[in-house]
Amino acid sequence: MANTTGQVIKCKAAVAWEAGKPLVIEEVEVAPPQDMEVRIKILFTSLCHTDVYFWEAKGQTPVFPRIFGHEAGGIVESVGKGVTDLQPGDHVLPVFTGECKECRHCKSEESNMCDLLRINTDRGVMLNDGKSRFSINGKPIYNFVGCSTFSEYTVCHVGCLAKINPEAPLDKVCILSCGISTGLGATLNVAKPKKGSTVAVFGLGAVGLAACEGARLSGASRIIGVDLNANRFNEAKKFGCTEFVNPKDHTKPVQEVIAEMTDGGVDRSIECTGSIQAMISAFECVHDGWGVAVLVGVPNKDDAFKTHPMNLLNERTLKGTFFGNYKPRSDLPSVVEMYMKKELELEKFITHEVPFADINKAFDLMLKGEGLRCIIRME
Amino acid sequence: MANTTGQVIKCKAAVAWEAGKPLVIEEVEVAPPQDMEVRIKILFTSLCHTDVYFWEAKGQTPVFPRIFGHEAGGIVESVGKGVTDLQPGDHVLPVFTGECKECRHCKSEESNMCDLLRINTDRGVMLNDGKSRFSINGKPIYNFVGCSTFSEYTVCHVGCLAKINPEAPLDKVCILSCGISTGLGATLNVAKPKKGSTVAVFGLGAVGLAACEGARLSGASRIIGVDLNANRFNEAKKFGCTEFVNPKDHTKPVQEVIAEMTDGGVDRSIECTGSIQAMISAFECVHDGWGVAVLVGVPNKDDAFKTHPMNLLNERTLKGTFFGNYKPRSDLPSVVEMYMKKELELEKFITHEVPFADINKAFDLMLKGEGLRCIIRME
Repeated sequence: MANTTGQVIKCKAAVAWEAGKPLVIEEVEVAPPQDMEVRIKILFTSLCHTDVYFWEAKGQTPVFPRIFGHEAGGIVESVGKGVTDLQPGDHVLPVFTGECKECRHCKSEESNMCDLLRINTDRGVMLNDGKSRFSINGKPIYNFVGCSTFSEYTVCHVGCLAKINPEAPLDKVCILSCGISTGLGATLNVAKPKKGSTVAVFGLGAVGLAACEGARLSGASRIIGVDLNANRFNEAKKFGCTEFVNPKDHTKPVQEVIAEMTDGGVDRSIECTGSIQAMISAFECVHDGWGVAVLVGVPNKDDAFKTHPMNLLNERTLKGTFFGNYKPRSDLPSVVEMYMKKELELEKFITHEVPFADINKAFDLMLKGEGLRCIIRME
Repeated sequence: MANTTGQVIKCKAAVAWEAGKPLVIEEVEVAPPQDMEVRIKILFTSLCHTDVYFWEAKGQTPVFPRIFGHEAGGIVESVGKGVTDLQPGDHVLPVFTGECKECRHCKSEESNMCDLLRINTDRGVMLNDGKSRFSINGKPIYNFVGCSTFSEYTVCHVGCLAKINPEAPLDKVCILSCGISTGLGATLNVAKPKKGSTVAVFGLGAVGLAACEGARLSGASRIIGVDLNANRFNEAKKFGCTEFVNPKDHTKPVQEVIAEMTDGGVDRSIECTGSIQAMISAFECVHDGWGVAVLVGVPNKDDAFKTHPMNLLNERTLKGTFFGNYKPRSDLPSVVEMYMKKELELEKFITHEVPFADINKAFDLMLKGEGLRCIIRME
């Protein structure tokens, strides 16, 4: 490719002009990266529920026009001042949250909630100068969580880019940018089931199935999938699910059903729906003495988590996680390696693929609840 | 002493004939230990809130007449069939909960909630035959949590006795039977603050101060005591407390006060009051990303723990503990050793001492909220 360093790049991007309206492929101008920024060429991107949620923008302060997309794989085109960790040609996964490596959170072994680069869904502009790098005829097009991967080129803060093995196929590992790592890490990094344990997973969408995949990799003896949609069980078997509970099939609370199935409760549970009732059930279905429940799903603003405190005093643990507790730059490269070593199976998450021109089909599939991940090919 | 093995022993015990009425020192008959039981001579016992709570018996199904007491130190007098771990002359601490070493909980590294010998405050009789070993003129006097240490002799299940270093002074280490270990273990075994961390402790009674002592031993840099009674702060300084917050002194919620004092929250918090509002504050005052809150205090039956789930998703952890997660037989001997090595300071918990004949004075002191632990000398 021609050397475009320092120049504005004109390329195609899928612009959301208004909330809930189909994206329009437009020619946009992508400014060069500024201090601590990196411009990357996106090769593959996929659609995540979070894109759809902010595209629908129900009950939100809308930020439009905007370029969505935050699960992707790309190649560094050029780097801004101060960037030493990356150079043109490096393969990267952009991430919606970052790792500055300097704040208290980045320095803590336990946290990945970087003070500087923590997700901000309302911002739409770069940290450096409060502006977006995208424009059409001089008018700014806002970005999304510092990623905006529904564009042939995008600009990210260096702290939001994980440098990965260049041999990893970007059309597969791009899905590790968000949802799959979130579910996988919730199990591997937070719930940490021991070999032979029993695990319940609430919600069998892509994130929940990634949590099941984590349980399978951990050697769980039983993986109990919980979902209101019985159609999901067959798919879930591929991810290690051994049993299925549909709360609709029972008159008693699902936590009691699970406790009966498991002689008092599961060793670990992972909640991936965001429903407050599922969160409470996920907590109350773990065994006393050692059970750990992990919350992944994002709740509504007004929800209240409510339980009898004796459930805690009986030595249960309740934890939440954000992006599976992975630090984007430090940890994602090793998740990619898990795939390269054929431990982690990513192919089974990829149910659809469309060319960039058909990006709205990916939205349609997700709105209909069909499939898990749809890969969007940029070229 | 004369060999009393296999015989009924007549001795003095403080009998609670009715709820809330002063104990009466009576001559009782103590039957020999049956299978897996041990009869011990109590040398020192102390009074814990739990004795008072079940002696008052408010809103409970009363179990009277009864012999209370469960914090004590004693010497084995004789053992029943099947007991191989203990022999006459061994020094032991009776514990209100047990460790059978055979159930799932005992076999789990994480739990101390033994299925067989878990605390049962309603029972009043031995597991073996459903009878009490105490009687007066043939009429049974019920036991309390398998301990009944307000008696010169008592019978316990072998699983409820921790064999300790015979050189340890029983008039000091007897307080490790319950409250002090509960608070200490909540910090050392569950909250596990790292050196240099900030710790908040809610409730500065004996259990809370033991939690402070644990934080001091862990090398916490700041230990923030929270209590509605400002008089407790001076005492708390001896246990490592560096700062004090009285929720009454502030118009905003105490969790916000603590977050402001600590740049976003403490690293660990330990709740030792049992008040549901304190539990919620203790959880919400820990730092996002890595904060861990541990609940120790026993709540009311109808309480509900309530918080916004985002407090969890921001990577806070909420755990409860029972008896500081110590397994009575496996772990208490090493807590005694911590005292013997002068790491753990027990003397400062012991504020009063009375002869057995004055046991009701110990109740008066506790009801007035005076002092921490009152040692009752049996001889």
